[in-house]
Amino acid sequence: MEKDHFYMQLAIEEANKAAAKGEVPIGAVIVYNDEVIARAHNLRETTNNAVTHAELLAIQQACLHLDNWRLEDTKLYVTLEPCPMCAGAILQSRIPHIVYGARDAKAGCVDSLYRLLNDDRFNHQCQVTENVLADECGQLLTQFFRNLRELKKQKRKTQL
Amino acid sequence: MEKDHFYMQLAIEEANKAAAKGEVPIGAVIVYNDEVIARAHNLRETTNNAVTHAELLAIQQACLHLDNWRLEDTKLYVTLEPCPMCAGAILQSRIPHIVYGARDAKAGCVDSLYRLLNDDRFNHQCQVTENVLADECGQLLTQFFRNLRELKKQKRKTQL
Repeated sequence: MEKDHFYMQLAIEEANKAAAKGEVPIGAVIVYNDEVIARAHNLRETTNNAVTHAELLAIQQACLHLDNWRLEDTKLYVTLEPCPMCAGAILQSRIPHIVYGARDAKAGCVDSLYRLLNDDRFNHQCQVTENVLADECGQLLTQFFRNLRELKKQKRKTQL
Repeated sequence: MEKDHFYMQLAIEEANKAAAKGEVPIGAVIVYNDEVIARAHNLRETTNNAVTHAELLAIQQACLHLDNWRLEDTKLYVTLEPCPMCAGAILQSRIPHIVYGARDAKAGCVDSLYRLLNDDRFNHQCQVTENVLADECGQLLTQFFRNLRELKKQKRKTQL
């Protein structure tokens, strides 16, 4: 559990890097034999590339690092419950265990809308630990969207 | 309909390129204003990267081409029903319409196991046309796996 907190804290650091770039603050790290082999944050606006979510970027780094598309014996930490694309990428890369922070009621496909990682019709299932530093992870997002609304309000005022 | 056949034929050409590299033969193209802006085939074994499915690669090419993560007014053609990752990427990139060839009973997330592209809880839904040149698309896969089994059988015989 202490380890989970430690690695989630690294994922939160990644999320903070995203926020600093004006990106929705979501971060991910992948650990293999107690070594961090990938760390990434959401870069959708910076790259103008729809698939550059934190998890997708981290999974690709890890595949490169291990020179293998099968990420066996790895553990992925991500601040927010994965969307369908990222949940699917976790299945495709055979990650055996993920740990996430906050639930995503609008698009989460691990527990909220679907349970894609635990459907035995697929050729892989994944262990899931949720609710690790969930408050901090969720707070980052709440604060980000609050600031965004505030900025828009200020902008409208200036235009009047 | 004729246009759909034409573009699906290009996706089949991509799938054939995959087969020639020993990759599971799946191909995809993305069309924008009657222009092909992306074409790709599955490269998972060649790249050792779990997310290099035909659709994921094509979506990234199209984002680069349009310099936009929103692929509005595009149409994606793919020989096989998308998996959860690729269906999710279609939602993330806001593609309004996809056309696919054969169903994938084992992992298809558009019609077979889930209907992810038509779930109004997500912030995007996508029009779907299935069964375009389905026999040719499916046959490619059947033949590929038949050859693979044959090769393995031959190999076993040689080892005896």
